[in-house]
Amino acid sequence: MSEFDIAKIAAKALKGDTVAVSKLIRMAEEEDPQVYAALKHLYKHTGRAYIIGITGLPGSGKSTIVNFLIKHFRDVGKSVGVIAVDPSSPLTSGAILGDRVRMLEHSKDSGVFIKSLATRGTYGGLSRSTLQIANIMDAMGKDIILIETVGVGQTEASIMNSAHTTVLVLVPEMGDYVQTIKAGVLEIGDIFVINKTDKRDPAELKSNIESLIRHNSQSSSGKFWEQKIILTSGLLKTGLDELTAAIDEHQVFFNDHMKEQYLEKRLVQEIEDEVLNHFIAFCRKNLKEMILQEDLMAAGAIEEKNPYRISERIIEKLLNLIKE
Amino acid sequence: MSEFDIAKIAAKALKGDTVAVSKLIRMAEEEDPQVYAALKHLYKHTGRAYIIGITGLPGSGKSTIVNFLIKHFRDVGKSVGVIAVDPSSPLTSGAILGDRVRMLEHSKDSGVFIKSLATRGTYGGLSRSTLQIANIMDAMGKDIILIETVGVGQTEASIMNSAHTTVLVLVPEMGDYVQTIKAGVLEIGDIFVINKTDKRDPAELKSNIESLIRHNSQSSSGKFWEQKIILTSGLLKTGLDELTAAIDEHQVFFNDHMKEQYLEKRLVQEIEDEVLNHFIAFCRKNLKEMILQEDLMAAGAIEEKNPYRISERIIEKLLNLIKE
Repeated sequence: MSEFDIAKIAAKALKGDTVAVSKLIRMAEEEDPQVYAALKHLYKHTGRAYIIGITGLPGSGKSTIVNFLIKHFRDVGKSVGVIAVDPSSPLTSGAILGDRVRMLEHSKDSGVFIKSLATRGTYGGLSRSTLQIANIMDAMGKDIILIETVGVGQTEASIMNSAHTTVLVLVPEMGDYVQTIKAGVLEIGDIFVINKTDKRDPAELKSNIESLIRHNSQSSSGKFWEQKIILTSGLLKTGLDELTAAIDEHQVFFNDHMKEQYLEKRLVQEIEDEVLNHFIAFCRKNLKEMILQEDLMAAGAIEEKNPYRISERIIEKLLNLIKE
Repeated sequence: MSEFDIAKIAAKALKGDTVAVSKLIRMAEEEDPQVYAALKHLYKHTGRAYIIGITGLPGSGKSTIVNFLIKHFRDVGKSVGVIAVDPSSPLTSGAILGDRVRMLEHSKDSGVFIKSLATRGTYGGLSRSTLQIANIMDAMGKDIILIETVGVGQTEASIMNSAHTTVLVLVPEMGDYVQTIKAGVLEIGDIFVINKTDKRDPAELKSNIESLIRHNSQSSSGKFWEQKIILTSGLLKTGLDELTAAIDEHQVFFNDHMKEQYLEKRLVQEIEDEVLNHFIAFCRKNLKEMILQEDLMAAGAIEEKNPYRISERIIEKLLNLIKE
């Protein structure tokens, strides 16, 4: 596609053309380097959306919470983009469970744009794609962007870094989990939701988290956000208004105290992502053919298959390609 | 350090000098590019160790299983290397729990070498370091290498790819989790352990996994490994002999039917890792200074802070550096 075509698609996406938006999002998902040309045009129209990250282990009822939030924000007249980073993505295409299906029902509403990400991307690919898609949804005019991820692994933590407000969804059974990732829980959650409180008493987990928070606030200096714990039941539909109130409150705090620092951190992240991606894409484009030429499975001494020597040769070839 | 010094350290590591080994492992962990020079020397001494990956969510009792396996392999006269990829690593240094402490007790045994990895590395850093450390432990003469990871995320899946045998540890409560990552469970586990069977009846989860396996074996062709389910209780010490028998059985199967394919896949992975890492390290070395020069937080129009334009400029600068 020519730079001109990309600019045309970007212009259409800005007007909210969902075909154009879908095309750009697919390019971001497939790590197509041409998506940068589009993002270059779109960038000046970003910065208006509020990004909320929702994370938690499978079985915590995250999708129910996400569904509720979609409905809530639509009810108050806001448009919503959803990026669901699918749990089983690294391995195979994800199972579609009940709540995910219910989420899809929102997609009949033109004020809602939902993208499920199931890329196998490595080398930061998944978190880079997510950030790019958030920018695309932002530029197309979505007021709220919900990013749903699973757990608090490496990739998830880096995705959550780009959210303005992060919500960690737990269930009362997850006491062990919280103990193990103690520090992780504190760093990632602006708001803790203890969900499925109809099934089991949340008191123990709640006091558990409270003691972690107390410890945290003592060691902080200057302005800090007092992390909230919200008890919810998706089944009984309790606690959900408290959740949206807490999100509103955090948004005010964010705008007053965290915005500048966030913007700088995110800019640095995006620049680093794009630069590294350029070189990663360049390597990948040429690697397959170069590795094939090495004929790895041919008979020969183990030394001829030394990946550390082979990679040296290939690096040399790639550098020569750049110098040409 | 000079190439000569690196070669000296590599030679010492080969003789099992733990100071030299620790130094190399630290270099791998810190993504020090010089570690390649050492791995180039060590590579011809690798390929003898058998790598077993053990994964599962926090709270599944993985560390108990790992501890048992260390003891088992020591009892039959084998030396053991352990790489524990720590759950809270992406965020802060990990909590040391009871089982992890008990694992450390093995470190008094000179036949056991334990490394806890808590790097924040992105862009595939954690999985690259893990693979390099496995090669170092292999070259130093460890017979068995146990790699312990948490969950089945992106990074974990890529780490587990380098194991010869993978063990997925579950507990009876995790029915929801298994349902959600169905396909992931099947791809990652050669052996399923349902642990903590003293606490809750494992029957439901067991039949759940069995139905997934049955479905899997029907769709397979040619030789395939019939995945095993082992019920264990770390507390009551039951099922552990069945686990080691299943591992032995899988090792025989692996050597007969999977070895060649594994070796090629791993070689390609290692070459790709090393090549990409070279370029990633080159970018990172120069990026910080180049981003600082952009003065991101200075006053100015949003267009002047467009990361997609800034990264274009920086890529240009980096390419010129290579051409110089």
